[in-house]
Amino acid sequence: MEDLTRKISELSKRRGFFSQTAEAYGGVAGFQTFGPEGAELKRNIENSWRNKFSDSLGHREIEAPTIMPEAVFEASGHLETFDDMIIECPECGTSSRADHIVEDNTGIGEAEGFSTDKIEEIIRENSLKCPNCEEDLSDIPVEDFNLMFKTSIGPGSGQKGYLRPETAQGIFVEFPRFKEYMRNQLPFGITQIGKSYRNEISPRKGLVRVRELTQAELEHFIDPEEDRPPISDVEDIELKLYSREAQNKDKRGEEMTVKEAVEQDVIKSDWIAYYLGLATEWYRSIGVDMERFRFRQHQNDELSHYASDCWDAESQVDGDWIEITGFAYRGCYDLKKHDEYSEEDYTVFKEYDEPIEKKVTEADPDMGFLGPEYGNKAAQIAEKIQEKAKKSPEEFQGETVEAKLENKSFEIPTEKCNFERKTVTKTGEHIIPHVVEPSFGIDRMVYTVLAHAYDEDEVDNEKRTVLRLTEEVAPTEVAVFPLMDKDGLGEKAREIASQLRDEGFSVKYDDTGNIGKRYRRQDEVGTPYCITVDYETLEDDPETVTVRDRDSTEQERVEVSELSEFL
Amino acid sequence: MEDLTRKISELSKRRGFFSQTAEAYGGVAGFQTFGPEGAELKRNIENSWRNKFSDSLGHREIEAPTIMPEAVFEASGHLETFDDMIIECPECGTSSRADHIVEDNTGIGEAEGFSTDKIEEIIRENSLKCPNCEEDLSDIPVEDFNLMFKTSIGPGSGQKGYLRPETAQGIFVEFPRFKEYMRNQLPFGITQIGKSYRNEISPRKGLVRVRELTQAELEHFIDPEEDRPPISDVEDIELKLYSREAQNKDKRGEEMTVKEAVEQDVIKSDWIAYYLGLATEWYRSIGVDMERFRFRQHQNDELSHYASDCWDAESQVDGDWIEITGFAYRGCYDLKKHDEYSEEDYTVFKEYDEPIEKKVTEADPDMGFLGPEYGNKAAQIAEKIQEKAKKSPEEFQGETVEAKLENKSFEIPTEKCNFERKTVTKTGEHIIPHVVEPSFGIDRMVYTVLAHAYDEDEVDNEKRTVLRLTEEVAPTEVAVFPLMDKDGLGEKAREIASQLRDEGFSVKYDDTGNIGKRYRRQDEVGTPYCITVDYETLEDDPETVTVRDRDSTEQERVEVSELSEFL
Repeated sequence: MEDLTRKISELSKRRGFFSQTAEAYGGVAGFQTFGPEGAELKRNIENSWRNKFSDSLGHREIEAPTIMPEAVFEASGHLETFDDMIIECPECGTSSRADHIVEDNTGIGEAEGFSTDKIEEIIRENSLKCPNCEEDLSDIPVEDFNLMFKTSIGPGSGQKGYLRPETAQGIFVEFPRFKEYMRNQLPFGITQIGKSYRNEISPRKGLVRVRELTQAELEHFIDPEEDRPPISDVEDIELKLYSREAQNKDKRGEEMTVKEAVEQDVIKSDWIAYYLGLATEWYRSIGVDMERFRFRQHQNDELSHYASDCWDAESQVDGDWIEITGFAYRGCYDLKKHDEYSEEDYTVFKEYDEPIEKKVTEADPDMGFLGPEYGNKAAQIAEKIQEKAKKSPEEFQGETVEAKLENKSFEIPTEKCNFERKTVTKTGEHIIPHVVEPSFGIDRMVYTVLAHAYDEDEVDNEKRTVLRLTEEVAPTEVAVFPLMDKDGLGEKAREIASQLRDEGFSVKYDDTGNIGKRYRRQDEVGTPYCITVDYETLEDDPETVTVRDRDSTEQERVEVSELSEFL
Repeated sequence: MEDLTRKISELSKRRGFFSQTAEAYGGVAGFQTFGPEGAELKRNIENSWRNKFSDSLGHREIEAPTIMPEAVFEASGHLETFDDMIIECPECGTSSRADHIVEDNTGIGEAEGFSTDKIEEIIRENSLKCPNCEEDLSDIPVEDFNLMFKTSIGPGSGQKGYLRPETAQGIFVEFPRFKEYMRNQLPFGITQIGKSYRNEISPRKGLVRVRELTQAELEHFIDPEEDRPPISDVEDIELKLYSREAQNKDKRGEEMTVKEAVEQDVIKSDWIAYYLGLATEWYRSIGVDMERFRFRQHQNDELSHYASDCWDAESQVDGDWIEITGFAYRGCYDLKKHDEYSEEDYTVFKEYDEPIEKKVTEADPDMGFLGPEYGNKAAQIAEKIQEKAKKSPEEFQGETVEAKLENKSFEIPTEKCNFERKTVTKTGEHIIPHVVEPSFGIDRMVYTVLAHAYDEDEVDNEKRTVLRLTEEVAPTEVAVFPLMDKDGLGEKAREIASQLRDEGFSVKYDDTGNIGKRYRRQDEVGTPYCITVDYETLEDDPETVTVRDRDSTEQERVEVSELSEFL
């Protein structure tokens, strides 16, 4: 459909889905306010996600703050590397993403992974121009711009804090608390739905690239040696895959089942394959059009250094592919970092089935000898000797053992090392769990669902706009109208609305404007059914109403007592 | 109960309700992470609120961003006045709230409304000391500290933004959009549940004074002349009121019905009375102990300048009264401010029942005369004449009319003014709606519910800790245990758990540790019922299980097919 982006944006503003925030003050780029319909659609998508990816899997949801102290992002690496490349036009002052300028004006598809030097070179060689004023940007420096919003916690100069760029760190940093809560039993999953913030250089209009977004993230902590996903639950689900190989050979994507994808090694991690299967079921249920959908494997240069395999779910709107979910096998990267940087223990004690007898070698150097002999070097030498006893016990066979300290070498008499071979009993070991992470962008899901539900047809020779939302996510399941609000029709309609509400339906009552207008209004917000109470309703025994189907626009007379079953 | 605060904090950490954020990095004051149980409790309270104060009343929920541009807070007044008084100890560097130092060390109950000068004077006269190091703070300046977290939007110096200190502004600023969505029909209510941020000078431990909080706010937009609340719905509800008069006369609070409170003028606004009634029902349903609860009326010097009547709901924990909700009649203050500061229209057009004939007077000064005569003053003079025609038509009876401009006076010939009296037909007028605002602090609700549910008793001669949470909010409604996970008991228990889940119950399955321990665990997270599957279950026909009641600890044998009805 032509201009779908514009149509969605107009419909969204008119019908209370979303619109730019603070337009009264000229608006602020990258921030959107969800109106009544949009907030309800978004909440339905979130609840559906919660049901599918948290409750049904036995995972547990938490809620961490959106502001986190600097130390967390030092450890996570965001402080150093969560950057985009920025170039500022010397003529008009517009800041742009330098990699986007390259992508938009050369044949290069993905420039995000390039170095700033390389981007500068490409801009110079191609004499690329400012997208706003056409000024030549050759020789203008390209710089890294950290995308985290910064703030200050507490009075005075305070403590540095950042608005989280992903919800995940709020889970990782509290892992010591959660593993205790879970009684140290792997695997377990922790989920979170909440706001994240990215100070985008050039936000786009609408919900695709915003500065404040909602993520739904699942961190599944597993023992990589023991834990396997219940892949048989999803093995027959068809996946639409666009593998690295297909991308590189310029081939189209292919369809195969989860089972085939694992067996043919198209997807390396069975955990990722499992979640691609579950996610496919979910996307269908909320109304993603599978003809405008694919899983795209990351290229090697796109891959975060810690992720061994990574796939994005992408939806197509107006010809553009939009990343809606990232599936990453993150290994032990995150927990290891926090284990190193913080004072707490991010490991899980893994008990062996049977205690293991283990031969160990160790040294306990005689400080009464080393101290007087080597002065302030003694402690470091002792440490080297202890390390060596563990790693190279064979070196303790001679008269002396060598300890190297920076550039100097010391020969320590073996007899002063108290070298020993012994057998210890180990009941288990501390391991750092691996993490499988499906990370969903909720705003982009809302946008995709709206775009894929959008349709235009003709009813009674008039053009109609209709959102073909699934019942799972539609803001309203049933709208109830009295033909007019008089002669008791209004009371009866309100009674029916309230009865359906009690039965768990999401119901709206509307008595303004003519019936045709009310149908159109509900069509535009995607309500599957409209019920009209008319004079026949009051006359009939048993009472009947008309039920109109959104998609076919056909009407049927149904007994009031059978409504909830009919719907 | 002694030390309830400490006990709640310990239980919360042990059982996954909440704990300080980023303790691995030394923690950060004023930020708490909700663990699995706490997040679920909080979500249940939010959903219960949504049902009571949004859906049931036909109000609509929206979702605005948490970062808003500076212009919004310039208009709302937060930039200028959202301050606390801060004093910094010259000795130890501790920043404290100066008004709290006064309240804690003098007989003064409420010092928040005092000026900084007055606070300085009281500190000097009483030689008040630093609460941290006991240094004398006389002559140390007391300053205003703005509590909004500040950040910068976009690259470079960017645009100033603030984390919203209340969710309300996200509603007010978009009023032009919402009134259109509501087809300009008053009254209507817009609600929002979301994060707000206050950079507290001295946050307290726990959930009472945090820097990142969740609010549930309702802005009910009304026509003050036409719209009345359906007070008969709540008129018989007993309110626990602590009026301004009772406070000033040092009397205790009193109980009276909503109807009595309105009739006796204890509550000035019937809208506020209506919402106090609804809120009382709600507090009961989520487990607030009405023996530790009151509505306290604001003192005159506490009242925001725009609010004509304001009551706080307060709960008592460990002897301290905590504000959990504010009910304010805000008049037209908020919308009027945005109407003045922004480019958009915050009024609603109110159609008269019948068009009104109205006599008006107006002038249309002859610029062909004024221009040559008064040069660059002509336009201003014409404006003055037009104003005068509206307000003082009697002055157009003489030969000339006076127009004053700054200090100069001009006499304009009346015949050049084109003064006219005419009759116009008005079909309605633009009014600025009034706002009734109940504003709930969700974190404090969670804290109150935990504290009021906390109990200790003895079971089998052992001390037991139990949370007597209502079914409405308990994270888990039913826990299902197999006696042991063998001989098919585990399978049967999982089957029952899954069946109850399908029937809409919130269910946990647990098979670790002995049954006694599992009961204690569920008691501590407030689960009303535990179901145990034992060998009798498999033998009985029809199958039976034991159901244990949390509060009485009594067990009863129930047929599996009758479980959901029994619960």
